Amino acid sequence: MPTALSTDLYELTMAAGYFEAGTGRSATFELSVRGLPRGRGYLLAAGIEPALAYLEALRFTAPEVDYLRRLPQLGRVPVRFFDDYLPGFRFTGDVWAVAEGEPVFAHEPLLRVTAPVIEAQLVETALLSTVLFQTSVASRASRMVRAASGRPVYEFGARRAHGAEAGALAGRAAFIGGCSGTSDVEAGLLYGLPLAGTMAHSWVMSHDSETEAFARFLEMYGDRTVLLIDTYDSQRAVDRIAAARLAPFGVRIDSGDLLVESRRVRARLDASGLDGTKIFASGDLDERRIAGLVERRAPIDVFGVGTALSTSSDAPALGGVYKLVAMERAGLARPVFKLSPGKETYPGVKQVWRVAEAGRATHDVLGREDESPPRHGRALLGRVMREGRRVRPAPAMRKIRERALEAVEELPAEVLRLDEPARYRVEVSEGLVCLTAELKRRMDAVAG
Amino acid sequence: MPTALSTDLYELTMAAGYFEAGTGRSATFELSVRGLPRGRGYLLAAGIEPALAYLEALRFTAPEVDYLRRLPQLGRVPVRFFDDYLPGFRFTGDVWAVAEGEPVFAHEPLLRVTAPVIEAQLVETALLSTVLFQTSVASRASRMVRAASGRPVYEFGARRAHGAEAGALAGRAAFIGGCSGTSDVEAGLLYGLPLAGTMAHSWVMSHDSETEAFARFLEMYGDRTVLLIDTYDSQRAVDRIAAARLAPFGVRIDSGDLLVESRRVRARLDASGLDGTKIFASGDLDERRIAGLVERRAPIDVFGVGTALSTSSDAPALGGVYKLVAMERAGLARPVFKLSPGKETYPGVKQVWRVAEAGRATHDVLGREDESPPRHGRALLGRVMREGRRVRPAPAMRKIRERALEAVEELPAEVLRLDEPARYRVEVSEGLVCLTAELKRRMDAVAG
Repeated sequence: MPTALSTDLYELTMAAGYFEAGTGRSATFELSVRGLPRGRGYLLAAGIEPALAYLEALRFTAPEVDYLRRLPQLGRVPVRFFDDYLPGFRFTGDVWAVAEGEPVFAHEPLLRVTAPVIEAQLVETALLSTVLFQTSVASRASRMVRAASGRPVYEFGARRAHGAEAGALAGRAAFIGGCSGTSDVEAGLLYGLPLAGTMAHSWVMSHDSETEAFARFLEMYGDRTVLLIDTYDSQRAVDRIAAARLAPFGVRIDSGDLLVESRRVRARLDASGLDGTKIFASGDLDERRIAGLVERRAPIDVFGVGTALSTSSDAPALGGVYKLVAMERAGLARPVFKLSPGKETYPGVKQVWRVAEAGRATHDVLGREDESPPRHGRALLGRVMREGRRVRPAPAMRKIRERALEAVEELPAEVLRLDEPARYRVEVSEGLVCLTAELKRRMDAVAG
Repeated sequence: MPTALSTDLYELTMAAGYFEAGTGRSATFELSVRGLPRGRGYLLAAGIEPALAYLEALRFTAPEVDYLRRLPQLGRVPVRFFDDYLPGFRFTGDVWAVAEGEPVFAHEPLLRVTAPVIEAQLVETALLSTVLFQTSVASRASRMVRAASGRPVYEFGARRAHGAEAGALAGRAAFIGGCSGTSDVEAGLLYGLPLAGTMAHSWVMSHDSETEAFARFLEMYGDRTVLLIDTYDSQRAVDRIAAARLAPFGVRIDSGDLLVESRRVRARLDASGLDGTKIFASGDLDERRIAGLVERRAPIDVFGVGTALSTSSDAPALGGVYKLVAMERAGLARPVFKLSPGKETYPGVKQVWRVAEAGRATHDVLGREDESPPRHGRALLGRVMREGRRVRPAPAMRKIRERALEAVEELPAEVLRLDEPARYRVEVSEGLVCLTAELKRRMDAVAG
């Protein structure tokens, strides 16, 4: 969970600036992704509930305030900011968001914050790092789960994650994307996720024989036991299992050509009367490898995916932004935007509608919040926080996952395609096009 | 900081297994990286001190034990494990490690743990996620700092990091790699790092005019102020600064062609008598772009790097492993290894020596710890922990950074090259070659 200091220094220098100027004006920021990573047809929004938990809990502790007070960069900031403002800081804003697990596309707001500008600004860094990473992982998990065509996929990537917290967050996001569980125990505790695990090569190596290592584990774990069989030679390992009359729930292969190995192991298991024993496969898997194995009918029952999930290795960072879209002036929320080359955004407070026909989404409409919805359009952004409090408790993780699985299947098949997915159509409403053009004209006039 | 549950489930199932078997045998594990990421000639070890802090602090809290006790996966584990073992768990092992900031190469142990097998095994996941991520970031930072040729590089990537913790860890690792500081305030607090920051586009957009936004910030921050000038048009922004007779410390450009923009801005600043004002550049920078800008003499004084550093985007995961290399049998540490296809490791407890001539490293030797060192060889692995306690306090971050800068410059120039770096020579000692061959023979004999 981010702390109050999980932020860029400039959020604090700006906060002090707003405080000094007495700017209580309300601002609206929207968090969106500029473009989809190459090869991905859709994203699944994730990290929303953790972001809300952060906003609700956000406080500056006394040691944090003391640290800030002594920073030379804040040396000219009046002491009232440290004495009065920061210790009493609460997030008091309103938040709209898409449901976790909702498919989203470029330029669509995943989260919208309306709050006094000082608060809305201060939370930028933490909201981005919370939402973007989990969104990237959930989206990739969704691709893998679809590639696995009904076979369970487990997230096993904690060791390669960007620190322990990232490991737990990856487990959470992968579950939203449809994974069946994670090996990360902290994720199990924090988010109530199903846990899975087998054994490591070191367990086998630390015993005097492979048979002894297997037998010990089976004594402990009975009919849940999955034995790792490739420490020395997977064929021989199966023979040893059979010779010792062991009957594990499953065996895991973690190296070599998984297609060839799984076939050989399946044949050997079956020949040994172990036709009920399942095959788990892991080792540098991603959606393409999973799809290839499934297509060639590799007799793999369960997939374990590590690095590709926990670091979202194809897209370790989403081009996400948190942009000021409206600012109160004279009591009214006025749309604003910037013109930095290549970084233009749509101004104003927005809504996204998903238009479906016969249960299949045809396109989205990105429009002004105050426009009337398109026919058959479902609004994706709903209010989730009012004056700094959540308007409803966080849904259970299983519910989020179920909803996500359904919402993904609603997308057009060509958008869901693993390779070269079609671009999902996101229309910009007439109202938003006009507003953008009008603001550009006005700014050019000012500039001219 | 990882908790006791920041681990894969199988570490706990194996722990329970060792506990039940009464296996107090000592084991040695080594943490190394299998191969260098494409295009990187060297790695800088990082995350070592945080890893030691984790080992020292490692405890199972009562709620953690209760959670584990209720896990169906551990349902057959005898209650003594939860009642007696876990609550009293301490890491009591010995640790050897390379110094943080030391350049390291494929197959060289960064960290070696000797402890009762149950302890040495249990910490695997957290050690890997702590060391690998920071090593990847520190290494990339080193490349960027070298590309910048003396111009300061700051780490600005918290918002794209894999959660808040990863953001702070990235700031730490980037500093080890030679960055001058970070924008991540939490990293400043936790690790005593220098902080840097400017202002966001939203500060400019939230004021009635750019001039007002600039003037307000200068009033607050005086001669430390860096103004962001590309919200609308950077040339006009400079004119406004000049017209209002403002004299910022620096201006920042965050978009467009940074070479062209920096030249134009420099010329305009100079023409306005602002020749003392520095130019900060940011926006999708990495080592290649920095090198290109430096080569073409872009008048940029300071670089700010985000995503490329905080997610180590070219290598978001290192192929790191934590392998059992020796196991006590009959009171002696016996070397072990596995034969999984493509995943062979060198057996036995190892040391790495860096051989230098006239202050320039020529090659490393990876050997058995009990071998005599090569001539002019400096041992890289030193003891850092004895019976679960650090043998010395963690060095100051500035010391680690200085040492790293020196150690990198000791490497051959062709290894340091940004593009297609030469492969640094790591020799495997005769003793280690023989040991490996002998063990393979023995295992083949057993298998045959």
